[in-house]
Amino acid sequence: MSLFGFIEYPDASPEVRAVYDDIMATRKTDWVNNFWKSIAHDPSTLKRTWEDIKQIMAPGALDPLTKEMIYLAVSVSNQCNYCIASHTASARKAGMTPEMFYELMAVVGMANETNRLVNGYQVDIDAPFQEGWRK
Amino acid sequence: MSLFGFIEYPDASPEVRAVYDDIMATRKTDWVNNFWKSIAHDPSTLKRTWEDIKQIMAPGALDPLTKEMIYLAVSVSNQCNYCIASHTASARKAGMTPEMFYELMAVVGMANETNRLVNGYQVDIDAPFQEGWRK
Amino acid sequence: MSLFGFIEYPDASPEVRAVYDDIMATRKTDWVNNFWKSIAHDPSTLKRTWEDIKQIMAPGALDPLTKEMIYLAVSVSNQCNYCIASHTASARKAGMTPEMFYELMAVVGMANETNRLVNGYQVDIDAPFQEGWRK
Amino acid sequence: MSLFGFIEYPDASPEVRAVYDDIMATRKTDWVNNFWKSIAHDPSTLKRTWEDIKQIMAPGALDPLTKEMIYLAVSVSNQCNYCIASHTASARKAGMTPEMFYELMAVVGMANETNRLVNGYQVDIDAPFQEGWRK
Amino acid sequence: MSLFGFIEYPDASPEVRAVYDDIMATRKTDWVNNFWKSIAHDPSTLKRTWEDIKQIMAPGALDPLTKEMIYLAVSVSNQCNYCIASHTASARKAGMTPEMFYELMAVVGMANETNRLVNGYQVDIDAPFQEGWRK
Amino acid sequence: MSLFGFIEYPDASPEVRAVYDDIMATRKTDWVNNFWKSIAHDPSTLKRTWEDIKQIMAPGALDPLTKEMIYLAVSVSNQCNYCIASHTASARKAGMTPEMFYELMAVVGMANETNRLVNGYQVDIDAPFQEGWRK
Repeated sequence: MSLFGFIEYPDASPEVRAVYDDIMATRKTDWVNNFWKSIAHDPSTLKRTWEDIKQIMAPGALDPLTKEMIYLAVSVSNQCNYCIASHTASARKAGMTPEMFYELMAVVGMANETNRLVNGYQVDIDAPFQEGWRK
Repeated sequence: MSLFGFIEYPDASPEVRAVYDDIMATRKTDWVNNFWKSIAHDPSTLKRTWEDIKQIMAPGALDPLTKEMIYLAVSVSNQCNYCIASHTASARKAGMTPEMFYELMAVVGMANETNRLVNGYQVDIDAPFQEGWRK
Repeated sequence: MSLFGFIEYPDASPEVRAVYDDIMATRKTDWVNNFWKSIAHDPSTLKRTWEDIKQIMAPGALDPLTKEMIYLAVSVSNQCNYCIASHTASARKAGMTPEMFYELMAVVGMANETNRLVNGYQVDIDAPFQEGWRK
Repeated sequence: MSLFGFIEYPDASPEVRAVYDDIMATRKTDWVNNFWKSIAHDPSTLKRTWEDIKQIMAPGALDPLTKEMIYLAVSVSNQCNYCIASHTASARKAGMTPEMFYELMAVVGMANETNRLVNGYQVDIDAPFQEGWRK
Repeated sequence: MSLFGFIEYPDASPEVRAVYDDIMATRKTDWVNNFWKSIAHDPSTLKRTWEDIKQIMAPGALDPLTKEMIYLAVSVSNQCNYCIASHTASARKAGMTPEMFYELMAVVGMANETNRLVNGYQVDIDAPFQEGWRK
Repeated sequence: MSLFGFIEYPDASPEVRAVYDDIMATRKTDWVNNFWKSIAHDPSTLKRTWEDIKQIMAPGALDPLTKEMIYLAVSVSNQCNYCIASHTASARKAGMTPEMFYELMAVVGMANETNRLVNGYQVDIDAPFQEGWRK
């Protein structure tokens, strides 16, 4: 059970309802998922987190599907079960097919493997990789 | 200094040279980066790792740029300096612009933040997220 | 189910009972939580871990509430569900209010976010931060 | 070298300068550390991250020293060298003594140890810890 | 429920069945565990992962029990519940006794603790440890 | 530079010297590595950590080489550079050959990979793996 329980829409303060309304309008859904209803006990965290997410996940140089897959990749790597379940759902909604998911998982697994080979073999960074973006 | 030092092409066995040749041909480059020259002390790990990477990073349902950005996202999240430097370079080569990088980092940072909010607030998984892909 | 099951007080050896007694006396409770009853299968780990915790969590330069919140911060960051649940309870017992918890989570989330921005942007350590404590 | 180099004050846009000014005014310092000068290449990330940090680290239910120590605890646990160096400096500025640091490290180390004992022994959560905050 | 559900033997393609058969023959069992039946939705990941595991876990310079205990140590450190459960079972099958398990957990816990003390105290690497394997 | 600098033997208190003497006697060496000289600023952490390590790393159900390799596996997985360098040295001293190191790294890499595949595919624990050790 979520630590403080959920703040449901009818019980929410106007401040919290305004965030819930914006979440539903932005996502074109008629419900708010448990993450938001759990952190709503702290309205400033609710508002700040939602505004950050809304800004960061909006289409930009990267499209929404790519952003959702990156979010999922990090959540899988960090083993956050809630985040894996919710962002698998969001990524599907944004167009992720099973084939995309399979390849995403393969890359996440491989990166986690080679990250450790690098650590253990104590690999020095190649000079061309140290020049920063300016090269 | 890399733990065992680097195996340079002229000093490499035919087995190791074959992998180096395939790396350069696949990547259309004329050099091999330190990761491969460090793990080449164990030819079976060199060969297996390269063949896995070659298969996984090939274009498929996801394009090479997306795959490189996912690799970078995981490496940043895991704090593997070598991997961050080398995959930033590969992603740039595959077409990542500074604007894409900025958005990638924003998503990685945000995912790491909300992963922990979820943990701390002990958020239960919503029923619709538990239905698996079959829904 | 805990891997080896729990060693309950009536079934415990005198060596294990002595640790259980000290846990209850130190914490002023009349029960022992599952962590101790799970590791009691290895009395040397039980004794060493308890003595370490007792020494480390005792009031000192930091008060017990601060220590419990730090313990919780690390457990949330590492996503250890048992530790999150048990140290949320201990921190509450030591005086953590909901408002303190909210702020604690906000800091933990933020630290996890900026840790990754630093990794990705490959930020160099400022000279003043490299001088150690002696400055 | 930081990936894109640093944006120094004289070279900064008005938007970036406004953030730098607010950082210096809030912290009562006359310089801006490398983290901000590295992410300033993306003004929206600079602004969002600073505003979040400013809000989260302000005195509230927890005092600034406690918040800095929690930030440091997470950074140490995540092994982010830049963040460890910079938040050790901020925590000292907020009043952390060597004795506080020693105890902080002891708690962080211990939490990382017991988090893994819990994982390995597969400890079930005690019923009283599952009741949430409402008990 | 596993994301895509399980592919059971009777429903498997010849390609997937060939991997299942090899798993059962190599391990001398008459069943295939959920990990394989979950990733079998992507036959190329199934085949690659199995072939890698089969090669890596075969007896070599390290015996199978040592390899299983290392696998378990990493899984405990990463808090992967499925992997902890399955590799505890494999390690037992390879000969791990409760006493070995207790010591394994003690080492994993201790390593996680001292890793963080090193981070926090910013310990420099001793010159003799920097010489690589060639010394 | 280590945060507080090193406490060298001639400058050490009798309490710290006693630990240094025991480290050198136990390890049959004539020097103390930087880790101990860094944490010696807090004699209680020095003493507790050394006594724990001495107890945990002593030969028991697992031999010292196996214990050192497990310590190294965790440190590689956690990316602690100091710990990787120092425990590679200790494992070599305990008899680790290059071939053992290669296989150790292969297992650590593979475990990190499959841990994430499990997370992403949300694999349920098989019933036989849930029965605990008692089966």
